[in-house]
Amino acid sequence: MILRVDRLQTEMPPPSDPDPAGAAVVQELLGGKFGEMSTFMNYTYQSFNFRARQQARPFYDLVSSIAAEEFGHIELVATAINTMLTGSAGGPPAPSDSLSGVKAHQNPQQYIAGGASALVQDSNGKPWNGDYVNATGDLIEDLTWNFFLETGARNNKLKVYEMVEHPAARALTGYLLVRGGVHQVAYARAVEKLTGVDLMKLFPSPRIPTDKIPECQPHIQAGEHRKLYRFSPSDYQEIVAVWNGPHPETGEDLFVPEEAQPAGAPAFDLPAQEAVFAPSANPAEISEVAQRLRKAAGLPDQPTGVVAQDGNGTGVVDKVKDAIS
Amino acid sequence: MILRVDRLQTEMPPPSDPDPAGAAVVQELLGGKFGEMSTFMNYTYQSFNFRARQQARPFYDLVSSIAAEEFGHIELVATAINTMLTGSAGGPPAPSDSLSGVKAHQNPQQYIAGGASALVQDSNGKPWNGDYVNATGDLIEDLTWNFFLETGARNNKLKVYEMVEHPAARALTGYLLVRGGVHQVAYARAVEKLTGVDLMKLFPSPRIPTDKIPECQPHIQAGEHRKLYRFSPSDYQEIVAVWNGPHPETGEDLFVPEEAQPAGAPAFDLPAQEAVFAPSANPAEISEVAQRLRKAAGLPDQPTGVVAQDGNGTGVVDKVKDAIS
Amino acid sequence: MILRVDRLQTEMPPPSDPDPAGAAVVQELLGGKFGEMSTFMNYTYQSFNFRARQQARPFYDLVSSIAAEEFGHIELVATAINTMLTGSAGGPPAPSDSLSGVKAHQNPQQYIAGGASALVQDSNGKPWNGDYVNATGDLIEDLTWNFFLETGARNNKLKVYEMVEHPAARALTGYLLVRGGVHQVAYARAVEKLTGVDLMKLFPSPRIPTDKIPECQPHIQAGEHRKLYRFSPSDYQEIVAVWNGPHPETGEDLFVPEEAQPAGAPAFDLPAQEAVFAPSANPAEISEVAQRLRKAAGLPDQPTGVVAQDGNGTGVVDKVKDAIS
Amino acid sequence: MILRVDRLQTEMPPPSDPDPAGAAVVQELLGGKFGEMSTFMNYTYQSFNFRARQQARPFYDLVSSIAAEEFGHIELVATAINTMLTGSAGGPPAPSDSLSGVKAHQNPQQYIAGGASALVQDSNGKPWNGDYVNATGDLIEDLTWNFFLETGARNNKLKVYEMVEHPAARALTGYLLVRGGVHQVAYARAVEKLTGVDLMKLFPSPRIPTDKIPECQPHIQAGEHRKLYRFSPSDYQEIVAVWNGPHPETGEDLFVPEEAQPAGAPAFDLPAQEAVFAPSANPAEISEVAQRLRKAAGLPDQPTGVVAQDGNGTGVVDKVKDAIS
Amino acid sequence: MILRVDRLQTEMPPPSDPDPAGAAVVQELLGGKFGEMSTFMNYTYQSFNFRARQQARPFYDLVSSIAAEEFGHIELVATAINTMLTGSAGGPPAPSDSLSGVKAHQNPQQYIAGGASALVQDSNGKPWNGDYVNATGDLIEDLTWNFFLETGARNNKLKVYEMVEHPAARALTGYLLVRGGVHQVAYARAVEKLTGVDLMKLFPSPRIPTDKIPECQPHIQAGEHRKLYRFSPSDYQEIVAVWNGPHPETGEDLFVPEEAQPAGAPAFDLPAQEAVFAPSANPAEISEVAQRLRKAAGLPDQPTGVVAQDGNGTGVVDKVKDAIS
Amino acid sequence: MILRVDRLQTEMPPPSDPDPAGAAVVQELLGGKFGEMSTFMNYTYQSFNFRARQQARPFYDLVSSIAAEEFGHIELVATAINTMLTGSAGGPPAPSDSLSGVKAHQNPQQYIAGGASALVQDSNGKPWNGDYVNATGDLIEDLTWNFFLETGARNNKLKVYEMVEHPAARALTGYLLVRGGVHQVAYARAVEKLTGVDLMKLFPSPRIPTDKIPECQPHIQAGEHRKLYRFSPSDYQEIVAVWNGPHPETGEDLFVPEEAQPAGAPAFDLPAQEAVFAPSANPAEISEVAQRLRKAAGLPDQPTGVVAQDGNGTGVVDKVKDAIS
Repeated sequence: MILRVDRLQTEMPPPSDPDPAGAAVVQELLGGKFGEMSTFMNYTYQSFNFRARQQARPFYDLVSSIAAEEFGHIELVATAINTMLTGSAGGPPAPSDSLSGVKAHQNPQQYIAGGASALVQDSNGKPWNGDYVNATGDLIEDLTWNFFLETGARNNKLKVYEMVEHPAARALTGYLLVRGGVHQVAYARAVEKLTGVDLMKLFPSPRIPTDKIPECQPHIQAGEHRKLYRFSPSDYQEIVAVWNGPHPETGEDLFVPEEAQPAGAPAFDLPAQEAVFAPSANPAEISEVAQRLRKAAGLPDQPTGVVAQDGNGTGVVDKVKDAIS
Repeated sequence: MILRVDRLQTEMPPPSDPDPAGAAVVQELLGGKFGEMSTFMNYTYQSFNFRARQQARPFYDLVSSIAAEEFGHIELVATAINTMLTGSAGGPPAPSDSLSGVKAHQNPQQYIAGGASALVQDSNGKPWNGDYVNATGDLIEDLTWNFFLETGARNNKLKVYEMVEHPAARALTGYLLVRGGVHQVAYARAVEKLTGVDLMKLFPSPRIPTDKIPECQPHIQAGEHRKLYRFSPSDYQEIVAVWNGPHPETGEDLFVPEEAQPAGAPAFDLPAQEAVFAPSANPAEISEVAQRLRKAAGLPDQPTGVVAQDGNGTGVVDKVKDAIS
Repeated sequence: MILRVDRLQTEMPPPSDPDPAGAAVVQELLGGKFGEMSTFMNYTYQSFNFRARQQARPFYDLVSSIAAEEFGHIELVATAINTMLTGSAGGPPAPSDSLSGVKAHQNPQQYIAGGASALVQDSNGKPWNGDYVNATGDLIEDLTWNFFLETGARNNKLKVYEMVEHPAARALTGYLLVRGGVHQVAYARAVEKLTGVDLMKLFPSPRIPTDKIPECQPHIQAGEHRKLYRFSPSDYQEIVAVWNGPHPETGEDLFVPEEAQPAGAPAFDLPAQEAVFAPSANPAEISEVAQRLRKAAGLPDQPTGVVAQDGNGTGVVDKVKDAIS
Repeated sequence: MILRVDRLQTEMPPPSDPDPAGAAVVQELLGGKFGEMSTFMNYTYQSFNFRARQQARPFYDLVSSIAAEEFGHIELVATAINTMLTGSAGGPPAPSDSLSGVKAHQNPQQYIAGGASALVQDSNGKPWNGDYVNATGDLIEDLTWNFFLETGARNNKLKVYEMVEHPAARALTGYLLVRGGVHQVAYARAVEKLTGVDLMKLFPSPRIPTDKIPECQPHIQAGEHRKLYRFSPSDYQEIVAVWNGPHPETGEDLFVPEEAQPAGAPAFDLPAQEAVFAPSANPAEISEVAQRLRKAAGLPDQPTGVVAQDGNGTGVVDKVKDAIS
Repeated sequence: MILRVDRLQTEMPPPSDPDPAGAAVVQELLGGKFGEMSTFMNYTYQSFNFRARQQARPFYDLVSSIAAEEFGHIELVATAINTMLTGSAGGPPAPSDSLSGVKAHQNPQQYIAGGASALVQDSNGKPWNGDYVNATGDLIEDLTWNFFLETGARNNKLKVYEMVEHPAARALTGYLLVRGGVHQVAYARAVEKLTGVDLMKLFPSPRIPTDKIPECQPHIQAGEHRKLYRFSPSDYQEIVAVWNGPHPETGEDLFVPEEAQPAGAPAFDLPAQEAVFAPSANPAEISEVAQRLRKAAGLPDQPTGVVAQDGNGTGVVDKVKDAIS
Repeated sequence: MILRVDRLQTEMPPPSDPDPAGAAVVQELLGGKFGEMSTFMNYTYQSFNFRARQQARPFYDLVSSIAAEEFGHIELVATAINTMLTGSAGGPPAPSDSLSGVKAHQNPQQYIAGGASALVQDSNGKPWNGDYVNATGDLIEDLTWNFFLETGARNNKLKVYEMVEHPAARALTGYLLVRGGVHQVAYARAVEKLTGVDLMKLFPSPRIPTDKIPECQPHIQAGEHRKLYRFSPSDYQEIVAVWNGPHPETGEDLFVPEEAQPAGAPAFDLPAQEAVFAPSANPAEISEVAQRLRKAAGLPDQPTGVVAQDGNGTGVVDKVKDAIS
């Protein structure tokens, strides 16, 4: 089972100019064959289906804990897409033509099926599906696949980087390249430990060193490329048996940090987009009910949840919200 | 982001007689339109895409924390399927005809694509897909849908209950009926709070009281039908604003327990199934490597992970393993 | 638009011994590439999208009216499937193992997603989809396709005939072979009129004369193989311009009858199947509410709708219902 | 079975400036998860599969008759799309570059697979499929789903309204919002009658009163929001037992009109689009053959079918046709 | 089995101005329902599954040899797409925004999943699938279908011709119209021989004579519309028994040429597109390795394969490459 | 382009006892994610889309020639399935119940859509689709994927071996394991040459040495595990630059043989299956027409094509045919 922490794994920029076309492209990193839904679900089902796990504990722990990190990645990609769509549907709801600006959008369902928000689809609008999961139960095969899956994911991230300049997309790909790179190394290392094959020579793959990407720098400087978190209060201790030795690109030592997970950062509380009825064509109604329920339950007047902006209308997002309304 | 706890949300029975036909049917509860992948992913994406969440915090917290519980449900369904398939592929690997007994199996991919294990598919062998997710951003609509989704899920669980007698399937459905019932009430309550509609009158739906199902009894006696967990170390405090009042079937008070999540139980370490190369056609190789790596990393000789059986070959599973080998 | 007549286009047998395996196969005639959903939707969309229809009125009328008949065909196939499944899920609902007898069923979703009833799927459990529709707007191409579609449909009906002996399946295929044969001739005739190609020489295709099939006899004796109905109170008069000349297999004259549609027959009121909660795990509740509403609305005590059995529990279905309960 | 009436359920505007981008978006209302194919097919299969229908006759009649109305809705959506595409492919056929203007179209298949016409797809170009149908046989569950389905459909119509300003799209959504609203109320009423749950409090959902939409006004003034038609020459009399009481938004009485269906209006005879060979790259050939066949069959010189424009080339469409050729 | 010849069936133009929008449209001719993957796979599986082939040898030979030609057609369509995309991703790889120009592309996967290259998809980005294959085993039915499939393919080619003016698209459609026309006649002839139906009267279908298309002229002048190749070193001799008589459009004699296949032409060696890492973000690495391996294997310094441009950097493609880099 | 040779790459057994359940399983090797359609199409599209191929000629030649071999593999799998289904539909066509024996078949479409023949589907009846193709254009990534794809394919072949004992399935898997093993080595070698990674240590993967499988023996003894054919009359000479060195399992030298392709063997002429109208419900009609056409074309009385049995009714298949008729 899991526990959820209401923070993003890394800081994400506030909404700025909307970029619907970019948001349609970033969907590939969410629901594409090599997107984060695929990494999340591949490792999750491999861990569920892992037979004789006690005998292979370091590998079970590796797959299980990386699966946990991947949940944070689908969260980040969705956050980037939602950020990029914010402001594009903020006008008044029907009757109006608030959405006429996105009539020729590549993925109209981001507005029609969603609320100016992420879908479980790829960049061609095709839903993610369970066929993208390989969980054969054969440990060497699954680990080899995982290495390849991360390679394909890295390829796609680099291309989306080139295609989309929006700050949210760049912050996203910068972070994911570093952390996906960790997983690529981790699975390569696992195959190496099991079979003796020196997969380290395949790095970087594609042939673009991670440290060439400016948006990766802060994370590299924080050593995020060397750390594999356990992502568990007390389990998955045995990843240390696999995650060790030098990093294939930098030669620095790989290590498992003390803390279970990165500190992360709160998400921005993305503003309502009335034209798509998110959270309502009439958000005040919800706000009032929520406030009443909160009071009745003895909760404080201010929401207990933490978000990236302050609540008094002077934060960054509030300014953006003013600007785009 | 999430933290993962290497325990099941409830105790599951050890493998006994394999039931491949039943395991094919139980797939519906995993990858079906109304299966646990759907509940997990619907609530997860609704939480990711939740706009103006501070204003609607109790509802955001509700959807977010139930999403977290649903991860545990896909884990349980996969566990049940894997348990039911254990023993059906335990013979020697190729060359042999170890798998000839499942040649006419409804879902041959459980053996060919998987390792006698769960797939991300429904009972007709169709992959789960992202189209099953509704995350419109309209809060009332999403909560109404969630209520319906849980109703459909309960329908399917009851039918799978009738169709499959295997102990793992019955333990699974008994638990899921109780906890899914909690979610059904939670979303009904949320709609009620927001709109005044008395959805409580729709219970039970389908028209079979939960307490009629014998396998639900232990969980009802433990009060699991009344508790909504936060499934977070410190977040999602505001679910108390929605989850309160009487249970629609029993009239008892609903409450949010102190503990973040149920205690749960360790999983059985399901034995290797050599005929499908899970974890290998030659598991000893993996075991040796793992032991070597463990030692090199300064880990203890015995695996640090906890499983349901003891490690000295005298537990229940070991006996089963002997019996089926 | 359409008006609906609550009668089947032909008489169907009452439920007898259930035949789940057969019912799974008959799905091909409903949701298969060459099933009745395909014929219905192909002609429907061709009629919607028909350009310059005044100039081509006889062809527009032909396609439009045959589309209308096809609705009755999906109704008949669904009826056959439902009839064949009746009795297989009539036991008590959960907790029970009333459905254990269909655990190894080819299409478990007929019970889990449906209520022992037809699905919009083919015989492999794959959903029908809009890709099966060709409505190119090119009249000659569409008519040529329609001829081929009917040929493929006839092929499939003949094979299902051989595969499934259940009386409902045989009554179904007997009728559909005659009426589908009419459509096959109609489209061939239309192509012939437009281009001069003598498609009559392709009959019968497949090479099995319709009059060889015993279950086709009553319909042939009633002349149903020669009639093309308008299926409209007053429209589609111009089909006479296409539907004329000799029948390619029998040489008899084709004609458009006075009556708009066949007399048809009422459907059997298929009994509840409690194990799948159809119409409820507790049908009496619905019955009571319905009776109360009827009275309040000034309707007579007895339902105004007509079904194939009498209402006093002595009809054929009632006997079957007794026998299988 | 059905009878077809060659009229639209409401008047639609003639073609004007083509709007291919809008036509791609409107596809969502046809082949989307919450589009009219879904409402049509959900209710149709629920009626086919309805068990113990005599005992539940008012509900059977309700579902059956609404299914019939939905056929008219797919017809209207297709008509709107076809109207919006008219004029965009009216140039000379190959060899030419008549279609170069739509090279970057979101849905090139509207031209390549269709004849500048509607496809059985959604706004992302994904085919409608049978998975969108829920016909569980459990009456309360199905009715609850139907209410939700209409809610989702209303959401999508409102968004398409905002996105597409073309007169055909606006006329379409104006009408469908009123009639879909009737179905939303009808199913809510049915659930209410069966269970006592006051779903009326959920209206309007989304939170935009129908009478705010200008294009709904004529239909509201005609009382179309209060009428539920039987859509049958003589059946489905018992819908009066469910369709009664006050309208949840206006408080006016709901009623079942005397007439079986709305008067409707003839469709415009959309002109040929030669560039896509609809109905031919050489339409004159078809016209000549049709005329010859008509004469041979003793039909009058003028087509017997009625369309919205006159036949002598002076009607609205003829002018448009002149303008765009 | 097959032998492969490293030449295209016809000469294709070198890359010029890239045309991504056009390349997305041309995908329909590759992975669409009526694209070349469909013709290739339909005939291939019909030949594999052909029963009693000795008794029906001329027809077996016909289907088998046309299947072989179709491989060359998927090769040509892929070549056209790749040519049209060349130059659109030739900038420096990440970090850069080399792909920002194609952010709003209809099919972003041509860059993200592919390397500025063809995908196995249609023009809406939907993958080709095995459902598009009809191989019923009924010879008359299969041949009738094949005729229709070629008709649909011709329809689509003509529309793509109108939609896309890029030289590669025009060269492609010009050639395919001639050769696809041959297959359309061949299957019509086969049906005619088997049944006596005079399908010749259906030509041309659509109603646009092939000789009207300028890009077809060179191939018609070379007699390519009259030749059916055996596409085999020594097999498929019996196609002469079907492929004979006059061409339905020109009246000229059909004939089977001496040579097994057309002479064809070498492909252009399309330049690297570094922004999409094709063949690498750092192509020099590959080049060096290849040269080293060649030498070690005793191969000549210059590649043994033949391409359309010379190897010394002065050919057409080299100039284009210079121009676009 | 390709030339086709009307021979199988290896000898296949004649039909014996039919094995429909086995034939449904073997579909995985044809249309599964890791089936031969996938290997064929992956390499084919990689070769089509190969950029800068002159610089990387040995790798281009490798991928291109292996693609050619894979055509022979889909042919072999289809042949095995067809052989296994032969005899199960040989009874009289409708009216009859000749197909009642396969009513509960896992894949009824093998009979309804096919003619007791192979479909482009996997073992769960899901169509193969273009999503299974990875052709990224990044050479290292594509080759790494190809290695993994062959690994997955080998896994599936071994499991099908265990599951299905029918002689055709065993002959098939025996041969494919050897030849697929060659491709697995070839791609591993290619990655090794390009990057220095020693993938040889991953063999065998899964951990079952090829020489343990009895049905592989004849092919190993013939050295088929060491040969990589060019599969081209004169091209693809540079595969020698990659295909060299010792075999990872046996240590023997790898080599490129003189002959372009294996000698192979003629296919059995599988007898008609009248119950599924393959090639007709009335095969004599076809035979007569064929004979007449042959004569008219000046062809000899006996078919020119070579099949595995003699033509005078005394061969193996003829006996089988007698036995099963």
